[in-house]
Amino acid sequence: MHVFGLEQIKQVLPGLDLVPLIKDGFKAYSAGRTVVPPVGELVFNDPPGDVHIKYGYIKGDDYFVIKIASGFYENSDLGLSSSQGGMMLLFDQRTGREKGVLVDECYLTNVRTAVAGAICAEVLAPDPVECIGVLGTGVQARMQVSYLSTITRCRQVKVWGRSEQKMRQYQDEMSADGWQVETCSAPGDVAASCNLIITATPTKTPLLTADHVKPGTHITAMGSDSPGKQELEPGILEKADLIVADSILQCRERGEIVHGLTSGLINEKDIIELGTILDEKASGRTAESQITIADLTGVAVQDIQIAKAVFEACRKGA
Amino acid sequence: MHVFGLEQIKQVLPGLDLVPLIKDGFKAYSAGRTVVPPVGELVFNDPPGDVHIKYGYIKGDDYFVIKIASGFYENSDLGLSSSQGGMMLLFDQRTGREKGVLVDECYLTNVRTAVAGAICAEVLAPDPVECIGVLGTGVQARMQVSYLSTITRCRQVKVWGRSEQKMRQYQDEMSADGWQVETCSAPGDVAASCNLIITATPTKTPLLTADHVKPGTHITAMGSDSPGKQELEPGILEKADLIVADSILQCRERGEIVHGLTSGLINEKDIIELGTILDEKASGRTAESQITIADLTGVAVQDIQIAKAVFEACRKGA
Repeated sequence: MHVFGLEQIKQVLPGLDLVPLIKDGFKAYSAGRTVVPPVGELVFNDPPGDVHIKYGYIKGDDYFVIKIASGFYENSDLGLSSSQGGMMLLFDQRTGREKGVLVDECYLTNVRTAVAGAICAEVLAPDPVECIGVLGTGVQARMQVSYLSTITRCRQVKVWGRSEQKMRQYQDEMSADGWQVETCSAPGDVAASCNLIITATPTKTPLLTADHVKPGTHITAMGSDSPGKQELEPGILEKADLIVADSILQCRERGEIVHGLTSGLINEKDIIELGTILDEKASGRTAESQITIADLTGVAVQDIQIAKAVFEACRKGA
Repeated sequence: MHVFGLEQIKQVLPGLDLVPLIKDGFKAYSAGRTVVPPVGELVFNDPPGDVHIKYGYIKGDDYFVIKIASGFYENSDLGLSSSQGGMMLLFDQRTGREKGVLVDECYLTNVRTAVAGAICAEVLAPDPVECIGVLGTGVQARMQVSYLSTITRCRQVKVWGRSEQKMRQYQDEMSADGWQVETCSAPGDVAASCNLIITATPTKTPLLTADHVKPGTHITAMGSDSPGKQELEPGILEKADLIVADSILQCRERGEIVHGLTSGLINEKDIIELGTILDEKASGRTAESQITIADLTGVAVQDIQIAKAVFEACRKGA
């Protein structure tokens, strides 16, 4: 069995064109050409942590993939990353035989999530993007912005986070990468001046309300990966002209959409899957004044696509 | 990350006393001291195969474990084992960090299943066991009998399988290990002369009926690991004096018990968990004339217990 670690994975990534691969994954998913069972979840209380198991396959493909990603948020007290236990396992779809393991420490999950955000911006963000707004100062708050660099020429970023210190750190680090970053004192201030907003926090209390969001705004919400988390007041979904889910099935249980559905403010028929838009069977943004929302919960097909590409590149390089 | 293969795993196994470890696992499970989410399942049609993901942890323990086991039944046409893609992954329960992988090719799943069968025989089989009956001629049909050698002095075995050739092979191989094996022409012939019966087939059509089973018999049914499989006519459960499940929760979906419940012939309150008996909070067999049934669907806590013991032994030896 081939085992590749994070260093090798990071070496091959720049050579891969992930956007079309992940797009193909979303298209296959929405067209019913995949088998993706419900997300497996393991929750820990002492210390708090959660582990997600996402798995599945594209029919007729060579591989099936099982992805394990964990978040143990008190690891920072020990000087450790919260996502220690991430790996992607590849198996032969015809015999079940294990082919290899990418011990990615959740890095590939972060990359494929950021790529999905870039794809959403490509089909949903207004043109031009005047300013990119970011709620959160963590890994995704950085990577989502970094992966927008090929989608938009905008380099203006407004960021809000609970910790003043982490906001300053975000500003310093992203500025070094060529972004012009301003910090904001409230989430509403971000929404007031940005027309492409990324929410990347683990909050359980909504940060943005319907009043905050002005016409012509796109929001990609990707922080709510577990049931109970929520970044947007459901009124925003009601106000939106277009609600896009990576997976309608998963959004019944997690993400932002579930809160809109259970509150009765939106209806499942109002939701379009990203893969359906990418397959040109539904429209993305059709007018500059529209409010569009993309709710990303993370689908195994993203893991399948990135795992295959990285594994084959690692094997060639090994 | 430590990776240990099947050869190393087989080297350390003889030094491990698995029965008390697996018993402790069942006790912890039935006492509510574990977190074991529903089994993850991935099904393939072309070629046919299934993958089971079992995972969880014992509260306060060092590890959590994710176990992957696959069955691709046309592999034999390629000269390959059906269970190519088995592995057990161990992680640190406090940080989520991966600790190691046992690439066991499903061998440890077979071992922990056989150990569970031996535990069932210990608390449920009549004394003395006059003859051991086996339906099936595969890996479990062998291992279940082998692991009985410390539980009973009986060395008489009657076996039935669909293939005459595989029955002869079973007879030859098990005889070489000191068992006195007779072949039978029908499942009912096994039941007529054996008071400890193991069913280890992937059948979807019941092999034994209530009329076949005589008083003073214990049956351990372990072939029905997926919904749809069924080895015993539900009337056997109705006739039984004691129905034992490894997991009542899992037996609502798979195994023999689900068929008894859905047919209305038995009630969930009639079922006792193995761990409850091992913990002496319920009785096992209380009279020689009783018919007892153990329905084993395989619980993640068995994987957790065997994975920890094998991993630590491999690490010491490495």
